[in-house]
Amino acid sequence: MSDRVKEILSWYSNETPGLLANLYKMMNTGRLAGTGKLVILPVDQGFEHGPARTFAPNPGGYDPLYHYQLAIDGGCNAYAAPLGSLATGAAEYAGRIPTILKLNNSDSLMASEDPCPAITGSVQDALDLGCSAIGFTIYPGSAFRNEMYEQIREISQEARSVGLPTVIWSYPRGAGLSKEGETAIDVVAYAAQIACQLGAHIVKVKPPAAHIEQAAAKKVYEAQGIKIDTLEDRIRHVVQSSFNGRRIVIFSGGAAKGADAVMEEIKGIAAGGGFGSIMGRNAFQRKKEDAVKLLNDIQDVYAAAK
Amino acid sequence: MSDRVKEILSWYSNETPGLLANLYKMMNTGRLAGTGKLVILPVDQGFEHGPARTFAPNPGGYDPLYHYQLAIDGGCNAYAAPLGSLATGAAEYAGRIPTILKLNNSDSLMASEDPCPAITGSVQDALDLGCSAIGFTIYPGSAFRNEMYEQIREISQEARSVGLPTVIWSYPRGAGLSKEGETAIDVVAYAAQIACQLGAHIVKVKPPAAHIEQAAAKKVYEAQGIKIDTLEDRIRHVVQSSFNGRRIVIFSGGAAKGADAVMEEIKGIAAGGGFGSIMGRNAFQRKKEDAVKLLNDIQDVYAAAK
Amino acid sequence: MSDRVKEILSWYSNETPGLLANLYKMMNTGRLAGTGKLVILPVDQGFEHGPARTFAPNPGGYDPLYHYQLAIDGGCNAYAAPLGSLATGAAEYAGRIPTILKLNNSDSLMASEDPCPAITGSVQDALDLGCSAIGFTIYPGSAFRNEMYEQIREISQEARSVGLPTVIWSYPRGAGLSKEGETAIDVVAYAAQIACQLGAHIVKVKPPAAHIEQAAAKKVYEAQGIKIDTLEDRIRHVVQSSFNGRRIVIFSGGAAKGADAVMEEIKGIAAGGGFGSIMGRNAFQRKKEDAVKLLNDIQDVYAAAK
Amino acid sequence: MSDRVKEILSWYSNETPGLLANLYKMMNTGRLAGTGKLVILPVDQGFEHGPARTFAPNPGGYDPLYHYQLAIDGGCNAYAAPLGSLATGAAEYAGRIPTILKLNNSDSLMASEDPCPAITGSVQDALDLGCSAIGFTIYPGSAFRNEMYEQIREISQEARSVGLPTVIWSYPRGAGLSKEGETAIDVVAYAAQIACQLGAHIVKVKPPAAHIEQAAAKKVYEAQGIKIDTLEDRIRHVVQSSFNGRRIVIFSGGAAKGADAVMEEIKGIAAGGGFGSIMGRNAFQRKKEDAVKLLNDIQDVYAAAK
Amino acid sequence: MSDRVKEILSWYSNETPGLLANLYKMMNTGRLAGTGKLVILPVDQGFEHGPARTFAPNPGGYDPLYHYQLAIDGGCNAYAAPLGSLATGAAEYAGRIPTILKLNNSDSLMASEDPCPAITGSVQDALDLGCSAIGFTIYPGSAFRNEMYEQIREISQEARSVGLPTVIWSYPRGAGLSKEGETAIDVVAYAAQIACQLGAHIVKVKPPAAHIEQAAAKKVYEAQGIKIDTLEDRIRHVVQSSFNGRRIVIFSGGAAKGADAVMEEIKGIAAGGGFGSIMGRNAFQRKKEDAVKLLNDIQDVYAAAK
Repeated sequence: MSDRVKEILSWYSNETPGLLANLYKMMNTGRLAGTGKLVILPVDQGFEHGPARTFAPNPGGYDPLYHYQLAIDGGCNAYAAPLGSLATGAAEYAGRIPTILKLNNSDSLMASEDPCPAITGSVQDALDLGCSAIGFTIYPGSAFRNEMYEQIREISQEARSVGLPTVIWSYPRGAGLSKEGETAIDVVAYAAQIACQLGAHIVKVKPPAAHIEQAAAKKVYEAQGIKIDTLEDRIRHVVQSSFNGRRIVIFSGGAAKGADAVMEEIKGIAAGGGFGSIMGRNAFQRKKEDAVKLLNDIQDVYAAAK
Repeated sequence: MSDRVKEILSWYSNETPGLLANLYKMMNTGRLAGTGKLVILPVDQGFEHGPARTFAPNPGGYDPLYHYQLAIDGGCNAYAAPLGSLATGAAEYAGRIPTILKLNNSDSLMASEDPCPAITGSVQDALDLGCSAIGFTIYPGSAFRNEMYEQIREISQEARSVGLPTVIWSYPRGAGLSKEGETAIDVVAYAAQIACQLGAHIVKVKPPAAHIEQAAAKKVYEAQGIKIDTLEDRIRHVVQSSFNGRRIVIFSGGAAKGADAVMEEIKGIAAGGGFGSIMGRNAFQRKKEDAVKLLNDIQDVYAAAK
Repeated sequence: MSDRVKEILSWYSNETPGLLANLYKMMNTGRLAGTGKLVILPVDQGFEHGPARTFAPNPGGYDPLYHYQLAIDGGCNAYAAPLGSLATGAAEYAGRIPTILKLNNSDSLMASEDPCPAITGSVQDALDLGCSAIGFTIYPGSAFRNEMYEQIREISQEARSVGLPTVIWSYPRGAGLSKEGETAIDVVAYAAQIACQLGAHIVKVKPPAAHIEQAAAKKVYEAQGIKIDTLEDRIRHVVQSSFNGRRIVIFSGGAAKGADAVMEEIKGIAAGGGFGSIMGRNAFQRKKEDAVKLLNDIQDVYAAAK
Repeated sequence: MSDRVKEILSWYSNETPGLLANLYKMMNTGRLAGTGKLVILPVDQGFEHGPARTFAPNPGGYDPLYHYQLAIDGGCNAYAAPLGSLATGAAEYAGRIPTILKLNNSDSLMASEDPCPAITGSVQDALDLGCSAIGFTIYPGSAFRNEMYEQIREISQEARSVGLPTVIWSYPRGAGLSKEGETAIDVVAYAAQIACQLGAHIVKVKPPAAHIEQAAAKKVYEAQGIKIDTLEDRIRHVVQSSFNGRRIVIFSGGAAKGADAVMEEIKGIAAGGGFGSIMGRNAFQRKKEDAVKLLNDIQDVYAAAK
Repeated sequence: MSDRVKEILSWYSNETPGLLANLYKMMNTGRLAGTGKLVILPVDQGFEHGPARTFAPNPGGYDPLYHYQLAIDGGCNAYAAPLGSLATGAAEYAGRIPTILKLNNSDSLMASEDPCPAITGSVQDALDLGCSAIGFTIYPGSAFRNEMYEQIREISQEARSVGLPTVIWSYPRGAGLSKEGETAIDVVAYAAQIACQLGAHIVKVKPPAAHIEQAAAKKVYEAQGIKIDTLEDRIRHVVQSSFNGRRIVIFSGGAAKGADAVMEEIKGIAAGGGFGSIMGRNAFQRKKEDAVKLLNDIQDVYAAAK
């Protein structure tokens, strides 16, 4: 075991060896094995945005097995998806790539100012499918935040009892926030902190923008001179806000964009001490070979980072 | 066992030896061991106010382990925090300082006139983490007060069945009260009474101001000549309102302020018979050595009080 | 066993001997033992109205143990209170006076046109504390009446399964009623009937006034010549409305008032066949010796009644 | 509450107020109320020896209600019997005399060198019947002792959880012992110790004889000069062996015999510090008035003892 | 926390912080606090050998509270006893000395070639009494060994789930072994290994003699030249047999003997790397001041050992 992986596992010393083994497995898979960095392929947009918006740009992705293979070929650490997608390839790909069962999901057929996803799978499903972790989305800022927080606490406790780590997608959204506020640096850092407090073993947030949403926070950022000018600064602040770096924090790739724009962002994340990326549309909406290349380029940046 | 600790434990004679042992442990730890007085370090503002507002003034505090060490070095009786923070240091600090798992929390990303925290941990979590008590916030005056009262009754009954005492943070807030009313003497005394009736073993309230919120109460305060002019008077009234002093009542330190202002308030609390302080931001937002000095000065005032 | 107690128990012949034994215990304690009459000391105003309004007139009452002793010294049949108060003295006074655990309570910090108390204790709590019955408030006339009716049915069923009788405080209040209607004779009689139908073993209502609230009722009262002129008449009607006297119906004492006014009312209740009083503020807000004297005077009136 | 009852209850300070209340009730009923002494009427011989051997000498005893009335008229503290007998009179006598449900019983139709009674009732039965305690027989020395020890631990834990104390009949018998050994002083003292260790709140043993059964014990009795010459000496040793007198130890009356022989034995028990008697056949096999007189005489001896 | 305690806790890194905290508490109590050595007072002979054989040499010991005080005054790390004894003093001594609830016990009234204790308490009892660990005896060599192994696995799993460590008394005995074989070096080392394999956190065995019981073992001991000549040699071998010293192994004191003989044995245990002693009869059968002196002398030897 590399010293870095050993160090990271030491942050979770209250957990069972079974849970540690699953963290270890994700950190020791793919091209980033042993570095303590992670690039994960997530594919839940079929549920979240609908199939055509998600898969038409690269129709191979209509097939759930495509993504298993992409995660493997792309040298990823893990592949995350909702129940149906994972189940379809789980037997064929059993043991070949760590999987993360996303346990709640929203669809886009019923808009809501205050989002609250449905619970779409169970810890038992995750065991049946041989997953290495469960995933869950919370929306801080939503009127239904408490429901989500309480759901993940119950689910996470059950998951821990069978050795499964919890990955929390912490996406501020809802009546409590402006649109710009959803990626404001104060809000993203806060969202990371909430995920940590709720017991996330791995936290996923969006790359933060320089905007500050909350007046009470703005005063402190200015008074304390917290650096947030560059993406690197902001990433560093989010990692610090995640128990001073004692939690694995990874960043989403967002909507599909040019490879240069992606790489620019990754460099900022890596420079700021981010633990990696969870890169969906920018991977599976590209042609297979382009996706693999992009994923590998991203991994190389993380591998080179201190 | 000191006579005072023995006397205090006698107030809880309906409880199991297991629960008494946990009360004993908190009362026999730190610089105030054996005095029946308590100074507790609480750190839940990361969840409640966000990380930058909480930790930027003294960035060491971003690290959850910092607070374990501060509680020990500061000679505190116990350290209270939400799940994630406690879990991060629980194995490394196992047994070294009594801990209190805060089982509900609010965040500030979705304002609400009537607050209702999410339940963010369980009695099983408290056992896993080796805690000596559970903590819970109620907001008397909120439209959701009944939900909170019923939640803590269920949780407290489960906690008692495994020997864990209940600490209730009783913070009047909500549509039923004016802003000034939140710290009004009649309201704070009432909030302490409610916590006692709900089975709190330790009650935490804010230091009360001289304002009287409720007209029906005002008549009685005047007719009966209840003394509320000085902080000492008001503390005495709150302690009396907590089953005539048969419950441990401690007072929060509130927002960060100058050491002189803190000590002035502590002297009033101690003079009025308060059992101690739960001092968060005024401790962990100071530099370590200043925080230890302030905590020690506070302890000295309580130790000297009758 | 007195013939009267035997007769009263015969009304509950569907219940277990365990439940009958608890009814027997309450009817065979204190100065009214064996008469089938009851004077009960209830102290839940600390929760309902706040500590100063409740206890400042006679500050000894801030101490929960004071009321145990007052109930004993005052020759009462039982003492009723919320969880925290009962728990504080339960070990020290174990077995010395039958106790009734009040399982729901409201506070006055958040006004509501339609009251709905929080559930603040459990049947298991009542067993732990050695109680002889559970108590519960319903507010007929509130928009939340059904919630309360359904709660007490569930709780009462559990209580019966361990031998604990149910005492229902039936207090009409809410958007469905005028202020005057809360004590209207038709409404109070109706509230007593509802409590009986919900399975109350002991019903507590307020002494009814001569006002008739409901137009549909008014027609019948007049057509049938139901006598409601005197308190004695109205009490007789309420008792008749409680399964023709086959349920124990007792009457609250209301706000503190002069001893003469109290005794006048008691005489009316006794003359009308009321089974007794549940006398809180008029007892514990007086000085101890005055309270004992008043309670004894009240008991003497009931003892002398047929 | 008498000082002696208060002292006795202090030995059970780890128990709930509910359990203490039931101990209090038994100690505050009958002619010995408040003395801390107990005379209990047990009638399980119908099950153990058959009806004719049990009831023919005084045929009134065929009727279960006879024994309820005898216990009351005889000024006893409690009445103990198996399920059927207790159930028959439980409603009619509800609340009038504390009852103890005997939860295991043996019959004599199948002899066995190593006795092991059947479990013939439940804690739920005891609640339904309004009992104040449960009773259970163990036979130390039987090859089935472990089964009995484990049964009473499970039952006792359930009984405690609803506030019911445990009375253990500890009767050495079985292949491990000679007939004489069943009442040997070393064996009876040991049987009392075992009952205490198993969590009995009240221990019932037979009056011990001067015989010493075990060689290993004989050496110690002689070396340490333990006094066992008189019944008073032996009772004192048994009480000492019951946690140095911190448990209530009462003694069985054994087979029917002349009143003088009974009284002689009682005087020895009382002089040695025994807490009382559980007197079956010597009571209910006598004519009613003789039985009442004998019970009263016995009570007078205990009342006069220090 | 001392480095040695930290090292010892690191051997149990698969356990919850709650369980570690209880190990910590036992290692940080008494005169050996922080050394990683343990001297524990066990008092279960009242159940195992009968009260007179156990307590008559020093009659203060008939009182369960005596042993709580002796463990404290003697500077012990913990006090172990069966349910009844622990329960009697649990409230009065709550929190003052770590306690170990012995969950199975044998009595001597029914001899058996193949011993199998009864289960005499539960994990819930241990929580109610505020214990820091559970204790359990296994008899390797008994025909019923499998029953005991399976019982402790179930109980230990439940205990771990609430944070309680398991102490196994591993005493070879039964038809499979000669009398001499019960303390044979090969057998004691084997018994320690079995306890470790069954999940014991602390192992208690008897000091081994130089005899080798098993022919198959004898060949290996000779071929490999395992040193067993001195007690120090044998202790070292037992500690090595306990996962190479990664489990806490302590040694029983056996029957009462002269202080010189005790100290001689302790020096051998300490020299061989034993973690301490569990010293019953040699402590509580001496006069209080002699017992305290002996316990302190023993502690001094362990404290001085490397």
